[in-house]
Amino acid sequence: MRKLFIALFFSLLASWSQAQQLERIEPMFWWAGMNNPKLKLLVHGIDISTMDVRLDYPGVKLVKVNKVENPNYLFIDLEIATDVKAGKFPIVFANKQKKKLQYIYELKNRETGPSRIQGVSNKDLIYLLMPDRFANGDVKNDVVKGMRETKLNRDSMYYRHGGDILGLINKLDYLKDLGVTAIWMTPEIENDMPLVSYHGYAATDHYKIDPRYGTLALYKTYVDKAHEKGLKIVKDIVHNHMGTGHWLYTDMPMKDWVNQWPAYTQTSYRDEPVMDPHTSEADKKKMLDGWFVPSMPDFNQRNPYVQNYLTQNHIWWVEYAGIDGLRLDTYPYNDPDYMKDWAQKIKAEFPTLSIFGETLVHTAAAQAFFTGGNTVNRGFDTELPGITDAVIKNAIYEALNGKSGWTDGVFRLYSTVAQDFLYQDADRNVVFLDNHDMSRFYSMVNEDLNKFKSGMALLLTMRGIPQLYYGTEILMKNYSNPDGLVRSDFPGGWVGDQSDKFTAAGRTAQENDAFNFVKTLANYRKNNTALQTGKLMQFVPENGLYTYFRYQAGGSTSANGAKTVMIIVNVDDAAKSLETARFAERMANASSATNVITGEKLNTLKTIAVPAKTTLVLELN
Amino acid sequence: MRKLFIALFFSLLASWSQAQQLERIEPMFWWAGMNNPKLKLLVHGIDISTMDVRLDYPGVKLVKVNKVENPNYLFIDLEIATDVKAGKFPIVFANKQKKKLQYIYELKNRETGPSRIQGVSNKDLIYLLMPDRFANGDVKNDVVKGMRETKLNRDSMYYRHGGDILGLINKLDYLKDLGVTAIWMTPEIENDMPLVSYHGYAATDHYKIDPRYGTLALYKTYVDKAHEKGLKIVKDIVHNHMGTGHWLYTDMPMKDWVNQWPAYTQTSYRDEPVMDPHTSEADKKKMLDGWFVPSMPDFNQRNPYVQNYLTQNHIWWVEYAGIDGLRLDTYPYNDPDYMKDWAQKIKAEFPTLSIFGETLVHTAAAQAFFTGGNTVNRGFDTELPGITDAVIKNAIYEALNGKSGWTDGVFRLYSTVAQDFLYQDADRNVVFLDNHDMSRFYSMVNEDLNKFKSGMALLLTMRGIPQLYYGTEILMKNYSNPDGLVRSDFPGGWVGDQSDKFTAAGRTAQENDAFNFVKTLANYRKNNTALQTGKLMQFVPENGLYTYFRYQAGGSTSANGAKTVMIIVNVDDAAKSLETARFAERMANASSATNVITGEKLNTLKTIAVPAKTTLVLELN
Repeated sequence: MRKLFIALFFSLLASWSQAQQLERIEPMFWWAGMNNPKLKLLVHGIDISTMDVRLDYPGVKLVKVNKVENPNYLFIDLEIATDVKAGKFPIVFANKQKKKLQYIYELKNRETGPSRIQGVSNKDLIYLLMPDRFANGDVKNDVVKGMRETKLNRDSMYYRHGGDILGLINKLDYLKDLGVTAIWMTPEIENDMPLVSYHGYAATDHYKIDPRYGTLALYKTYVDKAHEKGLKIVKDIVHNHMGTGHWLYTDMPMKDWVNQWPAYTQTSYRDEPVMDPHTSEADKKKMLDGWFVPSMPDFNQRNPYVQNYLTQNHIWWVEYAGIDGLRLDTYPYNDPDYMKDWAQKIKAEFPTLSIFGETLVHTAAAQAFFTGGNTVNRGFDTELPGITDAVIKNAIYEALNGKSGWTDGVFRLYSTVAQDFLYQDADRNVVFLDNHDMSRFYSMVNEDLNKFKSGMALLLTMRGIPQLYYGTEILMKNYSNPDGLVRSDFPGGWVGDQSDKFTAAGRTAQENDAFNFVKTLANYRKNNTALQTGKLMQFVPENGLYTYFRYQAGGSTSANGAKTVMIIVNVDDAAKSLETARFAERMANASSATNVITGEKLNTLKTIAVPAKTTLVLELN
Repeated sequence: MRKLFIALFFSLLASWSQAQQLERIEPMFWWAGMNNPKLKLLVHGIDISTMDVRLDYPGVKLVKVNKVENPNYLFIDLEIATDVKAGKFPIVFANKQKKKLQYIYELKNRETGPSRIQGVSNKDLIYLLMPDRFANGDVKNDVVKGMRETKLNRDSMYYRHGGDILGLINKLDYLKDLGVTAIWMTPEIENDMPLVSYHGYAATDHYKIDPRYGTLALYKTYVDKAHEKGLKIVKDIVHNHMGTGHWLYTDMPMKDWVNQWPAYTQTSYRDEPVMDPHTSEADKKKMLDGWFVPSMPDFNQRNPYVQNYLTQNHIWWVEYAGIDGLRLDTYPYNDPDYMKDWAQKIKAEFPTLSIFGETLVHTAAAQAFFTGGNTVNRGFDTELPGITDAVIKNAIYEALNGKSGWTDGVFRLYSTVAQDFLYQDADRNVVFLDNHDMSRFYSMVNEDLNKFKSGMALLLTMRGIPQLYYGTEILMKNYSNPDGLVRSDFPGGWVGDQSDKFTAAGRTAQENDAFNFVKTLANYRKNNTALQTGKLMQFVPENGLYTYFRYQAGGSTSANGAKTVMIIVNVDDAAKSLETARFAERMANASSATNVITGEKLNTLKTIAVPAKTTLVLELN
């Protein structure tokens, strides 16, 4: 009955409508020589489904034209020959009244070059930033006429502040100097939403850079310039939902383009039903198909048109800009079968691309459940290479802030690292101390600079891919509740800012101390394969001291350049002395050490003095 | 040098010694028709290794006589034919001076019968008790002359109290009435230690019942009588260590019979090094080979003589007494390779026997690591069927005592059950609320009878094998620190006790309330396959209420006898109302329900009233 009504509604709409129109074809262009010969075009325009489709180009076969519930859509299945030549050709839409519409479709040549799609690995340090809050390079695009959010208001965390891609491009040297090697910007595609549009996770156009950030061409320039400077690019993509302002929502191809419920139903935000062998189907459906918030319609990822639309869009972005990595938002909320298929298709197209999913869960086992190649997921391989390792983050906080007990304090951290047996490869985990959804690290350690440094040392010496949140290096602070304050502007990113903390002169002595600590260690890490890709060996904490090593085969002898780095974590208020005899497996060949931060030389290693609340990072010689 | 010295020492000892003697052969007898044709006899006696060994019995082949460091030992390898006849034959030891010693060895017929080696499963309720503290059936054996501990002192938790196997036999009807179906007694083999010998985990003879508990024959009588009453028997065995008073320690076969260290080295009690892919070998060795306490020498389980001695001893006990299950003490402290080999040999001999290991670890993942058939142990199958599920215990405590938060309170319990994806079969986990090493459950819920009942309801309706600690059913209390108070005597187990809480008349009204709650539910469970072996379906807690179901295919229709039991946990101080629409997957066919405890009938199920601090157990009709 409902279906009938909808059909009737669309048919009336069609008869009332103006003449047929062609509004868009997506992807708007494609490339010759892609791995997957299939290309499916989404065509949108008033009553477009009433028209016939023709095209004629050597190597491009029109396999099928699919009509769906809404007459304003056509989905065209193409098969593209391996040897197709790049070039342009018209796609012609015609009706019985001989009316013709056409779109000049282009198959471009694929770009090549060593800096394209390099992958982001444990060799890197990722810097996460929100483009609206980092630096404003172009004040002309601060407010864009015709867009739904009309105000710029830097005094409110919920309005736009004006940061943009040009601003970020201007600060690439700052990031390079800090020791960053990869940038992850929260989503920069159009979010033409009436409120809180800076947030970025409510897309309204999957093929457009938000005009307040710049243009498609500028985004490509940004990627190219970053690559020139040796910085890689992570793109933040959202499979789960879009914004209510999306044209695909205001004029949906079919009713089940999004997950429909009798009444608005929110996800439970509980990941358990996805993995629980005892779950009800009702709880699983609520978790996966419930909406994140009312303003974000939840894609129906069991719909093959939706699947293809999203997957192709992501392939388009990687190929278009030469992106190095993808960060997948709200990973556990997505349909597992679709995400597996997605990952297989993406990896088939871009074997060097890196991928990691946001998994804010509460145990290492739950985290591991979502990783590719894990052994706990009952034979289902998610094919997801990496995850954001919130469990290690929590353990680092416990180490820094907790009281040392049998399972608490540094022991929790030790014990969490021990659970790496759960992963196929924990080196693909993204390690972090804060992000845009969390209280800032410096606030969470009660603005204790020693704890801050210990945390940074842990971040930059732990296994996995370290990720730094913008401004943490200059001691930006605040709590996630009330939401937003952790998304303050980077001081100096706007002309006329009171201070410019992108420069040493603009920073306080303490901020420079913090900045230099991060910079020293990040740059040291950049050139130390033991910290990047070396193995980790940890020891049971004793006397409140947690000691681990990063090393390569043959470590601590410099003959083959292999290095060993020793990390000693003392979170206590008292200085301590560490007897090193029990670490012989890693220290047997070492006779001296260099403090990586201070440059200080330790000429005997039998006993190491560890100051109060300090994490020592020592290169063994 | 050290070896030379030892050899010299033993050779001097030999020349000084009296004439050769034969003190014991172990196993002291064996059976015809065992699965494994190999039998290895340990022979102990002064200078016995200087004698030749002869035996002559059809079907018994003397394969090899092994001499070891200590001349007081011989290890004889026999091969026993499948069709060997039961019978007795002399094993003759002779020296060059024609001196002869002999031992009449017996191969018995294996007993058969349906109540032997039944296995203990989720159909059962295990009752754990300490034999010294449960009931004293024979005052004549309270103190045994010649044994190292000489005092009986019921006023001290550290001395013997006099409980024994006869006392337990006298109370079998009490246990049967309560609804118990299996008894696990802490170790009853000889612990001839000078101090704290009641404890039981410091064996001094692997083939002898401690005389203060009874005799070998009485132990067999106990098993038989229990079997007659439908009660199964779990034997508590210790692979990891023995007591310093053990004859195998005071006169060791070889130096590496136990794990030797340059100076006394205690285990770290840290299970992480066993599973941690980043562990040092030093930490792993300390965990596995370090001694539990100075009075408990740590078996060297890489020594094949030790391996065989222990494995054969365990096989001997099961075959001798027809035991139904084994509980393995301190499982993670044992050598993993040996334990796997052990489990394979035991299972090959007794396919119906149940086995579970004590794994006091801190996460479900760590617990799962030790279980057989798990997927997280990097391809190493421990072959251990069951474990003691301390993680569920902690989660139940959190549900009862914690404040309900996003990951706390009942949600922690829900979330822990969801982690069952880690196990091959969580139904083999032993679920418990307290034991002899832990504070008593009633104390841990602050002597709140409502919480006590909720805990008991969870224990008896959760997946897995429930285990009750003696006296918990009559609200015995106390904390594990100072150690011992949780091992108080069961009141009424001794003639002249002030009260006899084995009887309703001896219990207070409140104790009877608790007892009857456990008895009602335990007996209901005994006859309800949904609670025993049925599936579990749980729902995300909402409004502080945690709801789960135990069910069988076709549940909640009585046509095929299949049942569905609904459990609703309300830990809040306020009564609540539960809307049941979201549980349709399990309630669709149900129109009414019966409260299993009160017998009360619920004639409508749309909304269920849940009183404050109450766990409802409802059978759906």
